[in-house]
Amino acid sequence: MSEHTPGIPGYTYGTDEAARSPLSLEDLERLKAVAGLTPEDEEALHEAAGILAGQAGDMVTAWRARLGELPFMRAYSGHPDGTPNPEYGAASKPRFDRFIIDACTRPLDRDWLNYQHEIGLRHTRAKKNRTDHADSLDHIPMRYLLAFTAVVITTAREYLAATGATAERVDRMHAAFTKSVMLHVTVWTRAYTGAAGW
Amino acid sequence: MSEHTPGIPGYTYGTDEAARSPLSLEDLERLKAVAGLTPEDEEALHEAAGILAGQAGDMVTAWRARLGELPFMRAYSGHPDGTPNPEYGAASKPRFDRFIIDACTRPLDRDWLNYQHEIGLRHTRAKKNRTDHADSLDHIPMRYLLAFTAVVITTAREYLAATGATAERVDRMHAAFTKSVMLHVTVWTRAYTGAAGW
Repeated sequence: MSEHTPGIPGYTYGTDEAARSPLSLEDLERLKAVAGLTPEDEEALHEAAGILAGQAGDMVTAWRARLGELPFMRAYSGHPDGTPNPEYGAASKPRFDRFIIDACTRPLDRDWLNYQHEIGLRHTRAKKNRTDHADSLDHIPMRYLLAFTAVVITTAREYLAATGATAERVDRMHAAFTKSVMLHVTVWTRAYTGAAGW
Repeated sequence: MSEHTPGIPGYTYGTDEAARSPLSLEDLERLKAVAGLTPEDEEALHEAAGILAGQAGDMVTAWRARLGELPFMRAYSGHPDGTPNPEYGAASKPRFDRFIIDACTRPLDRDWLNYQHEIGLRHTRAKKNRTDHADSLDHIPMRYLLAFTAVVITTAREYLAATGATAERVDRMHAAFTKSVMLHVTVWTRAYTGAAGW
């Protein structure tokens, strides 16, 4: 368990244990601008956080179930032969759950950049499996990370609507969540490509 | 003007002039599965095509206006110093318009794979500017391609709702469109990364 964040082992947000992002705050401002993420979106994300907080665990469980239906995806979260690794899944799940809330609430600052780079690295050969001492395949292909973003975005809508917000507010929160997720995933890809062309 | 597709210069879909994708149809099936794109989504996309067909030109105009507000983005579509290049914009626009309809209607087959790879290459040093003999910066950073996908996805909703479809149908079409766009953009990134890690 991290000494910095009791309760979530390996969650090094805001600590020196997280990687240092190669991006500047100006890089981040430009990405926010291209993604269209506005102060109004950040307000809508805070509203979304209140709705999603109690559902984040269920969301991650549902997403993982979707991936678990695909035999070719199993070795990235299970053992190398595709058999389940419940210990790895249990160890990483609180961080994945927390990502949903962080994506709605964390200020977009240096700590954010650093931890997103850490998450990116943990999808690649640089750092995958290390945090949880797992033996899964040591690299999630970038194409699957990007393609699965469609599931994260589209399924989020029903969770945002679950507490009876008006359709207009659900639209607003869903658009903001979509922008936030795309911003996160975009920054994660930096760990895959290096600086050239990214 | 291409001899194959009168009316849209440089639109080489389904011809030998398009690049040959390095991906197999099995690769494509896996990406569809990870993105969650189902036969029901493909039906919803055909419904969406009917609604978007008359609006595609406006959508692209609006998206480009958004990008035009960002000074650091102007040299990718204008001249290298950021001044406008209306000829380049006019030459490439019919293909961008067409992308919206293609994303809703084209069968996901070998021709699709090939033309998506062509589109990917046309965002990078491999082929950017060549089709229209433009002098813009010769590579759109992958991070901006990915981040801008948030704008494409979120703004699509209002266009899908423009003709008065029920909220349930708009939800359905919007989810399908989101999956389709993510699938396209995912495949485009192959031109950026090469095979390693992708």
